[in-house]
Amino acid sequence: MVLGIDGYLGWPLALRMIARGHEVCGADNFYTRKAVEEVGSWSAIPIPSMEERVKAVKRVFGADLHFKEGDLRDYNFISSFIEEERPDAIIDFAEQRSAPYSQIDLSHAVFTMENNVIGTMNLLYAMKESAPNAHLLKMGTLGEYGTPNIDIAEGYFEVEYHGRKDRLPFPRQAGSWYHWSKVHDSNNISFAVKIWGLTATDVHQGPVYGTRTEDMKDDELRTRFDFDEVWGTVLNRYCVEAVAGLPLTPYGEGGQTRGFISLEDSVTALSLLLEHPPEQGTMRVVNQYAESRSVMELANMVKKAGDEMGLNVQIKPVPDPRVEAQRHYYNVERYVLPSLGFKPSHTVEGEIPVMLRDLMKYRDRLIEKRDAILLAGSNAGVNWRQTSNKVVKKPLRSELKA
Amino acid sequence: MVLGIDGYLGWPLALRMIARGHEVCGADNFYTRKAVEEVGSWSAIPIPSMEERVKAVKRVFGADLHFKEGDLRDYNFISSFIEEERPDAIIDFAEQRSAPYSQIDLSHAVFTMENNVIGTMNLLYAMKESAPNAHLLKMGTLGEYGTPNIDIAEGYFEVEYHGRKDRLPFPRQAGSWYHWSKVHDSNNISFAVKIWGLTATDVHQGPVYGTRTEDMKDDELRTRFDFDEVWGTVLNRYCVEAVAGLPLTPYGEGGQTRGFISLEDSVTALSLLLEHPPEQGTMRVVNQYAESRSVMELANMVKKAGDEMGLNVQIKPVPDPRVEAQRHYYNVERYVLPSLGFKPSHTVEGEIPVMLRDLMKYRDRLIEKRDAILLAGSNAGVNWRQTSNKVVKKPLRSELKA
Repeated sequence: MVLGIDGYLGWPLALRMIARGHEVCGADNFYTRKAVEEVGSWSAIPIPSMEERVKAVKRVFGADLHFKEGDLRDYNFISSFIEEERPDAIIDFAEQRSAPYSQIDLSHAVFTMENNVIGTMNLLYAMKESAPNAHLLKMGTLGEYGTPNIDIAEGYFEVEYHGRKDRLPFPRQAGSWYHWSKVHDSNNISFAVKIWGLTATDVHQGPVYGTRTEDMKDDELRTRFDFDEVWGTVLNRYCVEAVAGLPLTPYGEGGQTRGFISLEDSVTALSLLLEHPPEQGTMRVVNQYAESRSVMELANMVKKAGDEMGLNVQIKPVPDPRVEAQRHYYNVERYVLPSLGFKPSHTVEGEIPVMLRDLMKYRDRLIEKRDAILLAGSNAGVNWRQTSNKVVKKPLRSELKA
Repeated sequence: MVLGIDGYLGWPLALRMIARGHEVCGADNFYTRKAVEEVGSWSAIPIPSMEERVKAVKRVFGADLHFKEGDLRDYNFISSFIEEERPDAIIDFAEQRSAPYSQIDLSHAVFTMENNVIGTMNLLYAMKESAPNAHLLKMGTLGEYGTPNIDIAEGYFEVEYHGRKDRLPFPRQAGSWYHWSKVHDSNNISFAVKIWGLTATDVHQGPVYGTRTEDMKDDELRTRFDFDEVWGTVLNRYCVEAVAGLPLTPYGEGGQTRGFISLEDSVTALSLLLEHPPEQGTMRVVNQYAESRSVMELANMVKKAGDEMGLNVQIKPVPDPRVEAQRHYYNVERYVLPSLGFKPSHTVEGEIPVMLRDLMKYRDRLIEKRDAILLAGSNAGVNWRQTSNKVVKKPLRSELKA
């Protein structure tokens, strides 16, 4: 059961699990489609409706994908869906997933907290009731840890303090309301595992890049690709900027270092985790990424590949809209995925030319939404320090259709 | 500005600040009054309406207390109240404060998350807008830390890991949805301090006990005193059980150790923190308690004091409804309050006879609500493992009067 199956990652994971012979069902409220429109953008790669997606899956794989539209904030929806499907595994991508979106103003901050935290609470109660032995795979983020000046452990670490030792959760220092909502989720999931004996994998993943996976054998199977200020992530955005003839826009000094992973490797890693669940009644934390890179390194790699394709790429740093260290220590430990035999098959450097070529096909769509790209780091863009208090109406849980 | 001024702690703190010559205003939505009724109980000590309280303050102290009824989940309410009052300090007690209440069922869990997390988000945005230099004193709980097998630091600790060092937030391991909501609040506040330069004190307090403070010179100035399964805390409950002729009910082995503080000392400590705010733009974490005691020690002390008063007190452990260690290491560090000259003036042992005598006056009120006392640890009581999924209607943010 893939919750958030219509998303950038949800859709490719569904395809991978289908390709590997699993029965897959999924739900989505199509919120990302609407919210990307809200900020004046769209997916670089056109994506079909869910109805068409389901048909394409049938045509290409011969598989029946059972889809249901709904929202995790509606307990009755998620509990009846789980009750009907009795899944072995539930993958939760069904969250507001943008840091800038959560920083737009009070309404977006509150919406992010409510959507993510209450959605997860409903899911946990529904699992306890109807699928207590299912494996919950929750998409989290490496951003939960922030950038401490020590190695980042995989969820838990051995601490010695004043001569005594314990194994404790690694401290979280998130960098946006969105990232904090994920920390709250991680904490709430760990507690549900403790009191009810649920089984969960909390995946702390770094930024994902890429336009395709090997399962997308057909244009109708492609996944969305966001590039605007709010919904695009860093490497994907740089590739779009290069193709659209805009300068690449690292924030400030560009020393911000994160652990990146390709869409292909992300889906491979997730399918491994699904096929190798943790022991019943336990919580497993996984740090999932392939290589650590600073954003300035990424910009330089995109410039190099773009220039080789004749794109004449410029790099023009913009003021950092975030409150974050622009240079810092960064070393993220990972044990779980290597122990399952996971080896990344893609590198940033190898994948950038593939992305640039894929995006060239949609150059007109990128240029049409030029304004949404340019907002990042500009005065009109989202700024962590100058978030507004305006109360823009967002749909609340209680207003969802019953 | 005391948010939650109608509560067990909010009211005595308001009195103390008035007695010390400060101008005090406050808000409350009277939720605790309603929610205690919901579980079939009432305050052991009768409390007057807020209108009568305001009059009593005028009569006894000659002070004008500006009260406004409202709910922090309503951003317009809290932002306009802060805008009008422009407080130097804001004390936030305005939360759902019961661990068992949060564990009753899904609705109560979700209500706790929504009320506490969203209420705090609204408060932070309102402060940023209208009182960016005010000092936020947030009531948290020592329960955020859980019971690790190492000393509990005061919010942050120096960690050495793989040969590198950093000062990091002390890991949180809360024991109920309520306690986790407080962790979420602490995290969200620390982030608001970081991105907006707000000034905050996050008080991690242990369970408070006691029936009075020295400022309650008049029966009309008394504060509420809860004793039922859901709203009463451990030592207060034991005193009520002793007076009502019921056995004291430690959970399981009774080795659960916590840091306790009297109502009088709590109010003294909080007023010290308010009169000595942290540096502008920083977050200060304070561990606030006077003495560590196991619940079995408390039961034995209540029995001893009760027997001396001729009450013939029995101790009858009940199955632990919580998921918690019944024996564990417990040492909580505290530096801030001692550095401000705070010395506890009351001990558990000294205060128990005062509480028993105060409660004897209201013996009939306790016996009338006998059923609400007896639920704890019984099959019909709240149980962490067997929480229900029933969706009981709780008022949602969006349904509040505008």
